Formats: sequence, C-alpha cells, structure tokens
Amino acid sequence: MDTHDLVAVSERRQHQVDRVLRSFFDDSHYRAKALGNPYAALWQTLERNASGGKRFRPRMVMAAYESLGGTDIDAAAHIGAAFELLHTALIVHDDVIDRDFVRRGGPNVSGSYRDLATTAGIPLPIAEHRGMSVAVIAGDLALFNAFRMIDRSGVDGVLRTRLHDILDEAMFVSAAGELLDVDFSLRSDPPAVEEIVEMERLKTAEYSFEAPLKAGAVLAGAADQAVEALGRFGRRIGIAYQIVDDLLGVFGDENETGKTALGDLREGKSTVLLAHAVTRPEWASVASLFGSPDLTAADAERIRGVLEETGSRRFAEALARENANRAWEALADESLTPEVRDEFRPVVASVLGRVR
Amino acid sequence: MDTHDLVAVSERRQHQVDRVLRSFFDDSHYRAKALGNPYAALWQTLERNASGGKRFRPRMVMAAYESLGGTDIDAAAHIGAAFELLHTALIVHDDVIDRDFVRRGGPNVSGSYRDLATTAGIPLPIAEHRGMSVAVIAGDLALFNAFRMIDRSGVDGVLRTRLHDILDEAMFVSAAGELLDVDFSLRSDPPAVEEIVEMERLKTAEYSFEAPLKAGAVLAGAADQAVEALGRFGRRIGIAYQIVDDLLGVFGDENETGKTALGDLREGKSTVLLAHAVTRPEWASVASLFGSPDLTAADAERIRGVLEETGSRRFAEALARENANRAWEALADESLTPEVRDEFRPVVASVLGRVR
Repeated sequence: MDTHDLVAVSERRQHQVDRVLRSFFDDSHYRAKALGNPYAALWQTLERNASGGKRFRPRMVMAAYESLGGTDIDAAAHIGAAFELLHTALIVHDDVIDRDFVRRGGPNVSGSYRDLATTAGIPLPIAEHRGMSVAVIAGDLALFNAFRMIDRSGVDGVLRTRLHDILDEAMFVSAAGELLDVDFSLRSDPPAVEEIVEMERLKTAEYSFEAPLKAGAVLAGAADQAVEALGRFGRRIGIAYQIVDDLLGVFGDENETGKTALGDLREGKSTVLLAHAVTRPEWASVASLFGSPDLTAADAERIRGVLEETGSRRFAEALARENANRAWEALADESLTPEVRDEFRPVVASVLGRVR
Repeated sequence: MDTHDLVAVSERRQHQVDRVLRSFFDDSHYRAKALGNPYAALWQTLERNASGGKRFRPRMVMAAYESLGGTDIDAAAHIGAAFELLHTALIVHDDVIDRDFVRRGGPNVSGSYRDLATTAGIPLPIAEHRGMSVAVIAGDLALFNAFRMIDRSGVDGVLRTRLHDILDEAMFVSAAGELLDVDFSLRSDPPAVEEIVEMERLKTAEYSFEAPLKAGAVLAGAADQAVEALGRFGRRIGIAYQIVDDLLGVFGDENETGKTALGDLREGKSTVLLAHAVTRPEWASVASLFGSPDLTAADAERIRGVLEETGSRRFAEALARENANRAWEALADESLTPEVRDEFRPVVASVLGRVR
C-alpha cells in the first residue's frame, strides 16, 4: 500500500470507531437525562474527553483483525471502542492522581468541573477537589462501560469471554503500573532503567499495544500461535514507543509533538533518559534544575546538554531501536502472513523514524 | 421461620459469599504477585476493605433467589459477590471524594497507604494524596471485577446479559447520585427533602436493594412481573432504610449503631432531617453549630432538641414508615408467593423496628 492508501485506511478505521462511540455516548446521554441535567452534562464532558484523539488503540485492534482476514468491521470497531473507553478511564483517573487539570491543551474532566466551581465563586482548593471528585466518577463510568462495550459488539459465547479476559488483563496490568508510578514519585532513590521500562510497559504499553493487538487477532479467529506472536510484537513496539515518547518529551520539536519540550523536565518525570543520567557524575550540575516548576528554556538547554554528554540520549535511542527491531522480528513468526507484516511495517517504521 | 432459623440462614448465605470472594481474592493475589510484591500487597489491602461487612447486598440477592425457588446457591453467591465488589468500589471511591481515611473504625485504603507513607517520613499532605491515589486504583480494580464476577458465576447467554444490565444500571444510577451529593456540598441553598430522598435513592438505595433483589429474581427465572414487584419493594425499603440510617446517625444509641452520634452533626451531613429543619425559624439558633468539627456533646443535645421542636424527627420517622409500608404493599403483588413475603417480612420489621 502506498502512503495515500495507508492514510485512507487509517481514517476509515478511525471513523468507524468514532461512530460506535458516538452511538454509545448518545444512548448514555439519553439515559442520563432521565436522572437530571447535571448528570447528562457529565456524560457530555466525558464524551468530549474521549474525543479528539487519534483512536490509536482501536486502530491497533482493527489493524490486527483486518490483516488476519477478519471482515466484521463493526464488531472490530466495538472491540476497538472498548479499548478507547479503557484508555479514557485510565487517563481521567491518572489525571486525578497527577493533579493535572489540563490535557491536550484544554481542560480535562477535573479542569472543566474545577472551572465551573471557581466561576461560581467557590475558592480554588475546594473547586479543585470538586473537579477531582467528578473525575473519579467520570472515570468509573468509562471503566465499566469498556467492559460493556464488548457486550454491545454482538460477539458471544467463548469468544466474548476471551475478549473480556484480554481487557481484564490489560486493566489488571495497567493498575500495577500505575501503582509503581505512584511509588516512584515517593522514593528517595531514583528508579533504575529496568524499573522504568517495566513501569511504562505495565502502565501504558500493554493496554495500548499488546492487548488491542491480541484482541483483534482473537476476534479474527487466529490460531493461538499467531495471537501470541502479535502479542510479542505489541509488547516490544509498545516499549519502543514509550521510550521514543520520553525522548520527544525532552528533545522533540514542539511544532511536531504539539506539546512543550519543557513539560517533562519541569515535572521531573521518571524516564529511561533520567534513570540513565542520574548515575553519571555530570548529572550533579543540573540535578537541582530538573523537576523545578520555574525551569527556563536556558535551563532546559543545559539539561539537554548533560543528557547528550552522559550518553543518556544515545542510550535511550539504542534501547528504543533494539525494542523496535525485536518487535519486527516477532512478526517473522511463521503463523503470521505477509499481510500482517505489510500492515505493521509502517508502525515499526514510524517508531524508528522518530529516533535520530 | 423462627428467629434462630433466620439467623442460621443469614449466616449460611454470608458464609457462601465469603467463600466466593475469598477464592476471587486468592486468584487475584496470585496473579498480582507476578507483577511485584507492592501490587500483591494492594490486593491484600483491598480484600481487607471488602471484608468484615455483613454482606448485606449479597444477602438480598440470595433472599430473592431462594424465596423464588432458586437452587443453584453457588451461582447466586457469585451474583451476590458481584454486588459486594461494586459496593467496595463505590465506598473506596466515595472515601476519596469525602477525603475520609477511616471506615468501620480502622484505616480504609486511603488511610492504610497514607499511614505507610507518613511512617516512611513523608509529609502529611503528600502522604494523604498518595493514599487517595492508591484508593483510586483500588476502587477501579474492585469495579471492573464486579462485572467479571458475573462471568465467573457460570451463568451464560441471555441470562448473563440481563444480570450485567442490572449491575450496569445500578452503577449508572449510583454515579448520578454521587454527582448530586458532590453538588449538594457546594450549593449555598440547602437541598429540599425530595432532593435528599432522590440523592440517597440514586447513590445508595438502588444498588443496595432494588438491583440485588431484581438480580436474584432474574437468576431464579422469575416472571417479569415478579421481578418488577420485588424491584418496587427494593426501591421503597431502600429509601426507608436510608432515612432510618440518617435518624440513627443523630438520635441512635452509640452502643447499638457502633458509630458516634456526633459524626453526622459534625460533618454537616445533608439528610432528610436537616432538609426539614432548615426551613423552620427555630433552626437559626443552632445553624452555626451544625457542621462544626468542634461540636461538643452538649451542642449535639441542643441540635437534637431543635430537631424535636421543629417536628423534623417526627417528619423523618413518618416518611420512613410510609416508605416501609409501601414496600410491604409491593410484596402483595399476585406474582409473588407467600415464601417471598415470609422472607422479607423480617426485613420490613427490622426497618420499622428501628423507628420509634
């Protein structure tokens, strides 16, 4: 497929998932209205927070499904939507845990409800807690409806149970990763590289890559060996993707990434880059800047310089490349067809293309 | 059945649900261990928080099921356990919203993790946020596993979907009630009696009475008319129960209720009692005491005196009685057997017995 076709397929899949989600939110909004306008408004806020993304996880489900010969696109779009709702639940609750009130440049659920309260004259700390309280409720709604979305897919019997099991494992594992992340932020000693990789794999990579790919393969009726091979691909490409994401958070071009290249440094985010750098003597000269909310562009440049000097950037890039290569190797499994490799070659290429 | 038999049946049901939950937590703990000891410890904390209760909601499921002729006690215990996990999820997240760190006299999930952090020398505000963060994660785990517990029941096909739908509705409605409760706490004008009753019905009564009773009836294969009649019973007895609970929170004997009779007054809890009293001129003399964290036993006595004077206590008692009576009338439906009335007569009697 040429690039034009790739974009067309990707947009078609996104559109199909959008339609499923719109129908779900329409139904929920209608149900909610019977319980009062504030509840209906909460559902609208939740829908807004579940929109505007690239439907990354649903597209993984559908890519696996279609490349393995699946033809019930509507069922696949429902399974994809289930992962999108799981993603929404996890980020809404993650924002509560991180006390974030903004996502993608606009207010998230906590932010929307905080702002409503401050506008009504409620003092900021109380308004913030109100925002977080509503976000706890909203995340709960998205979470259990992720499971219900599989029931809406029309898939039944053993197959439905297997899909529920995969979504269950994704959520179970993500909670373990979130717990590690919470614990990292309270530790006095910085986590090691392997600990960061493990945390990111559990918290994000599994539910974003491994689980959606396995779900798509299971839905397509693929043999266990093919399901496992795609799962291995997902695990490796997911780790590679997270490391690249951390690299872009520090070295990325703001025009391309759409987020400030100061954010991760101001936040003092635990990444592979940092885990590598903190063990080097050169780090001492910038350690006090890292994590400072007042960090300037010049400070950021100094930290970037040290991350180059210590070889931390090169190290992270090599680790991302190694994982992307191992992901590609997983696709060579005899159980997978050339169609599967054609489908995921651009995914591997795009991860590698984002590394220098 | 005499009282001795009633207690024996109730204990047997509680024991059966305990066994199902223990097996679920054993499995989860085993799975969690593979992802690290801290995650396994979180599952132990969650299990502790899901234990020690009277398994009230499961017993409602089983009472409906058995009185309608159901004989697969293990399946009923699983559906009951699903409601117990939903209850656990809701109280763990409700405690986050209310910033409570204690439940039933011991630390809740937030409290356990806050205490671990303070013991490790972490300052209180950060430790509290850590406790709340872990509680967000723990509540999520209980919530999606409530749905999975129905899958573990062995029930399949249309029946499983109907049970999922009932649990879904219970959660959907409870979220609406929680949102109302959050909004009440920020309003300048106190909510009216009907608003309080509606909030308590949505937030607690539906998932505690109406939904478990309907689930038990559906599982027993009861006709739609019987399911609806038991649902109506559940709605009314649930409202009555909540009002009695509010009355006991102010007028109850601490030795009987097991909780301090100052708690609700210190917290300034929105109840039917309060909604009635605030519209009366006599209330002005105690308005400033209500909701004061420093409220003394003498202050509480003054407030109780005013609640008697204004007729608020009599009003709430009459409202509870009226709802309990309407609950009893719902059981007269021709679709329900004498066995059902025998099963639930003591439930009505115990609610009425707690009103003067």
